[in-house]
Amino acid sequence: MRTVGSAHADVIVVGAGIVGLGIAWALAESGRSVCVVDPHPAQGATYAAAGMLAAVSELHYQEDDLLRLMLSSAALYPRFIESLPGGAAATGYQTTETLVVGSDSGDRQALADLHTVQQRHGLDVVPLSVREARQREQLLSPQLSCAFVVADDHQVDPRMLAAHLLAELGAMPGGQTSVVRATARGVIHEDEGDLDSRVIGVDLDDGTRLLAQEVIVANGLGAARLAGLPGSLALPLRPVYGDILRLRVPDNLRTLLSATVRGLVRGVPVYLVPRADGTLVIGATSREDSLLGVSAGGMYQLLRDAQALVPAVAELELLETTARARPATPDNAPLLGRVASAQGDMIPGLVVATGFYRHGVLLTPIAADICRRIIEGEDVPDAHCFRPDRFSSPLRKELS
Amino acid sequence: MRTVGSAHADVIVVGAGIVGLGIAWALAESGRSVCVVDPHPAQGATYAAAGMLAAVSELHYQEDDLLRLMLSSAALYPRFIESLPGGAAATGYQTTETLVVGSDSGDRQALADLHTVQQRHGLDVVPLSVREARQREQLLSPQLSCAFVVADDHQVDPRMLAAHLLAELGAMPGGQTSVVRATARGVIHEDEGDLDSRVIGVDLDDGTRLLAQEVIVANGLGAARLAGLPGSLALPLRPVYGDILRLRVPDNLRTLLSATVRGLVRGVPVYLVPRADGTLVIGATSREDSLLGVSAGGMYQLLRDAQALVPAVAELELLETTARARPATPDNAPLLGRVASAQGDMIPGLVVATGFYRHGVLLTPIAADICRRIIEGEDVPDAHCFRPDRFSSPLRKELS
Repeated sequence: MRTVGSAHADVIVVGAGIVGLGIAWALAESGRSVCVVDPHPAQGATYAAAGMLAAVSELHYQEDDLLRLMLSSAALYPRFIESLPGGAAATGYQTTETLVVGSDSGDRQALADLHTVQQRHGLDVVPLSVREARQREQLLSPQLSCAFVVADDHQVDPRMLAAHLLAELGAMPGGQTSVVRATARGVIHEDEGDLDSRVIGVDLDDGTRLLAQEVIVANGLGAARLAGLPGSLALPLRPVYGDILRLRVPDNLRTLLSATVRGLVRGVPVYLVPRADGTLVIGATSREDSLLGVSAGGMYQLLRDAQALVPAVAELELLETTARARPATPDNAPLLGRVASAQGDMIPGLVVATGFYRHGVLLTPIAADICRRIIEGEDVPDAHCFRPDRFSSPLRKELS
Repeated sequence: MRTVGSAHADVIVVGAGIVGLGIAWALAESGRSVCVVDPHPAQGATYAAAGMLAAVSELHYQEDDLLRLMLSSAALYPRFIESLPGGAAATGYQTTETLVVGSDSGDRQALADLHTVQQRHGLDVVPLSVREARQREQLLSPQLSCAFVVADDHQVDPRMLAAHLLAELGAMPGGQTSVVRATARGVIHEDEGDLDSRVIGVDLDDGTRLLAQEVIVANGLGAARLAGLPGSLALPLRPVYGDILRLRVPDNLRTLLSATVRGLVRGVPVYLVPRADGTLVIGATSREDSLLGVSAGGMYQLLRDAQALVPAVAELELLETTARARPATPDNAPLLGRVASAQGDMIPGLVVATGFYRHGVLLTPIAADICRRIIEGEDVPDAHCFRPDRFSSPLRKELS
């Protein structure tokens, strides 16, 4: 086996999706040397994501811990973007508002119920009449049943953000950071025979060994396939596929939309995210079928429901159809933090950061912040509920 | 100006779409040396075409000359395919039947009226009950209003056919044929000051001159932009855009369809063409708007109407969306043959073959045959009605 010299980094981050890149950036900013490992950086869920920073309108019932995490991360976003040399211009960060609209009377009831819960949480969601909504966005259909405005739900362009992070990580002086385009086969332990012993690096599929003080497993669905994770650790990740469309707004229809529009159309969610470059992103289905590629039925549903909210969508040019899997967990919350050994001690050198499901882009700053604090030796009580071993037998016993 | 030596061909064909390639092949077969000129061979309408050879089911009212041409070309297809070294296997030629189905009662009436006209022309179109149609194709919707079977409407794969023709033309011994990847700027006349004098070649956009006994203008919509055409010749070509989808049928749904299915869904045509490789082609819209790319509304319409005929389309994987312009003419028939000068003589050295609109793939063998016969000095009375100058003033006067 070869051991490459440059690989004696402080931290190895496995996975260069938006979460892995964000973590690497935060660690590099705090002065650590970081090596990111990914065969195809930013080509997974990040490549498809619409980039809504929708802590408020993504609220789901009974997910209070997750809501708290999302709100914390949304609050960190401005500082996170400012920390990047290119700032908002290089990342597509926009603080425009989000309109939430319903199509039929059932949608109105569902969104009114959600609004009650949002108010209970003190969230800023203001009901509008359909007329008021159409004064803000003139191309909204007059056939809507209800409308709300959410001032605090913003957007970023995940492809721009990831490309900028990759470029900045590659450009840091003195080789403080590096991006290795390879697949991590597994984590390496200090005592090779003991999967509960300290993690000291990763080995790549070409046999190369990379060594570090800490390894952060942030490769989405791939985390569950990584060799060498503690035997007691179950990472219950499953793929939830999403189809997404990118369209060009012809000059005669600009500006089609100023705000992001999220809708419920006969109970099915759809969203329309206008980019500064005149394109529109429409998403997103949630499929748990076996179709890896773009679903014809999913595409049909998105075009149908987007037109129900904004009829002029029919006049746009279809630029791209994409499907990707998101790493989902049983409780829709991420797997984030250190992992206990069978003896109940935390395994040194190992942090897990995966399972971000529909919220990877939004949760990037808080995930980066929590990982940095954990690696600096801090206890982060707010994150205990997201421990990656909460579905594994020893912790399940401990928590019950 | 440079004159390239290899360019002293018997014939120059401007345009390497399916029609130009077919003409070049027929001329090469008859022993002539041929040079085909196109900056991007087979990337125009040919690239999008579904390849239905649907002389019978494409019958339109009041287009008797065109029907006769289509039937003649369909009859030539087997021999045309056999003339190619790769035959049916290399061109996707399949003689499976076509089912024509209607969705609602209006569609049933429209198809019944069409059937009356088809019978009057002696065409082989057999009415089926919906039950009989579903015995042939089990995944057809039970919600159809009518069905017919057309035994003589077949298919070819235009991309395969064009690629095979290109390869064969490039591989002919002794440099008898060549493909020049460049844009023809215009035709060159023997007397440079007289656009009615003999055509002796073409000049390319890099200044190169190619010389030949005969020039065949077969570059679709580009024909109208070619310099040097007779001043009295108007080529009334307009772009009619079509959107088309390519989908993959998952293993568990094969064989989705055996026959080509053409439908009328609430008055709007849609067709589903199953390929031997397990893909399905769905088309095609006819748009005369200004959108050059794929239309979101067109895509929606195709998916909606295809699902109305074959609900399992929702389960397919979307592989590709394509839009291309077809060169349409005022009477939907091609512009095919020699052109008269202002004095009424035919201009030597010039043949036009464009305006094939929705029928380029089907009409390729007959267009090739007619061009070959014209160049051999034969009069082709059957083709007089397609003369390219029939919309130009001198001939309009003569015909009126």
